[in-house]
Amino acid sequence: MRTLLHMPLDPGSRMARILLAEKGLPVCLVETPPWREPAELLARNPAGEIPVLIDEPPTGGEVAVAPALVIADYLEEAYGAAPMLPATSAARGEARRIAHWFDRKFESEVNQLILRRRVDERLAGARRLEPEPYRAGAERMRWHLDYLAWLLDRRAWLAGERMTLADVAAAAHLSANDYVSAVPWSEFPTVKEWYLRMKCRPSFRPILADRLEGAPPPSHYDDLDF
Amino acid sequence: MRTLLHMPLDPGSRMARILLAEKGLPVCLVETPPWREPAELLARNPAGEIPVLIDEPPTGGEVAVAPALVIADYLEEAYGAAPMLPATSAARGEARRIAHWFDRKFESEVNQLILRRRVDERLAGARRLEPEPYRAGAERMRWHLDYLAWLLDRRAWLAGERMTLADVAAAAHLSANDYVSAVPWSEFPTVKEWYLRMKCRPSFRPILADRLEGAPPPSHYDDLDF
Repeated sequence: MRTLLHMPLDPGSRMARILLAEKGLPVCLVETPPWREPAELLARNPAGEIPVLIDEPPTGGEVAVAPALVIADYLEEAYGAAPMLPATSAARGEARRIAHWFDRKFESEVNQLILRRRVDERLAGARRLEPEPYRAGAERMRWHLDYLAWLLDRRAWLAGERMTLADVAAAAHLSANDYVSAVPWSEFPTVKEWYLRMKCRPSFRPILADRLEGAPPPSHYDDLDF
Repeated sequence: MRTLLHMPLDPGSRMARILLAEKGLPVCLVETPPWREPAELLARNPAGEIPVLIDEPPTGGEVAVAPALVIADYLEEAYGAAPMLPATSAARGEARRIAHWFDRKFESEVNQLILRRRVDERLAGARRLEPEPYRAGAERMRWHLDYLAWLLDRRAWLAGERMTLADVAAAAHLSANDYVSAVPWSEFPTVKEWYLRMKCRPSFRPILADRLEGAPPPSHYDDLDF
């Protein structure tokens, strides 16, 4: 059975889950906390990071694929249904550029200061960490949302006139931050409208149904008309 | 004319240059220090990072492509010559996994502690930075070289029996660190033998000819029989 080693609030894991669902590929989800360095994870991905897709491709055998962006390319090439990359190489480059933007820039400037620290707080038993990085992260979050609004003033979707990998990556990252109430939606109405379109997709529903014990999301989190 | 916004010691820029040379695509190199935030760079890549490839594809028009791994995919798809990714999706996944390993893991664990600090030192006028991060970076460097040696005990090239994007990425990162004398080759003979094979390729020669004013490389740096 196709398996994804993941964690519910990890943006890369969410991206992989949405892509699998868009392509209609069923998957068995296995929660795998990377900080415990489980042997199964290290055997499948020597970098010790999630997500890892363990696939049984139509051509036979078993293959472990990581990290998240490589899973995206793998799914694109191995399964034709619901393509997430446009047809021309210029448009593919633009969709990939924005996906990498979230994987690297948004990850280091926002996730590391907000989302990852919220998870650390939870692991440390709700002990509050110092507030300064949260403030810096919130400032960068606004800068990133501003950039998305700029793109969406010019295009129907982030990389052009069709939904692509760029939208999936961005929505995966924002959804995890939304779970910890870190997205000031009301200040960015065009981004909110775009996110609502993403949220309404059937591929998004399992993501929105995830709950962390003792840490519920804000009330608008899974509201499809927020 | 096809143009690459780059810096001589930037590993991602080196990777793009080697790929272009392997595919026989001439390119005009423009040194573009990202820390000066030049308008040309920000207009071509809103992330403000190098490398950026400004290409004039056979299909017409002009396209700006970034970051380094997206340039790799773009060149693979737009130009068929000298493919840098294997044929099967499992083998492609493995080559991409290792390329991402260098782009993210090696970058944060080694480059940020050694290479990027050496460049900072040079910009700051040879003022020596504190030694502790260098020691931590050197330790991680050995860990990474150990992993490469483990791979090369099992395979002729890093991702399998043929040279791929994985080898280009690894050699680009190691060559920049070698310029600042940060690679303990003598402790890792199999990695050294593999790197010598990479160094001997015509695509590598322009990289090895680069010189930073006032900061020469060690004597073995461009020796093809070191």
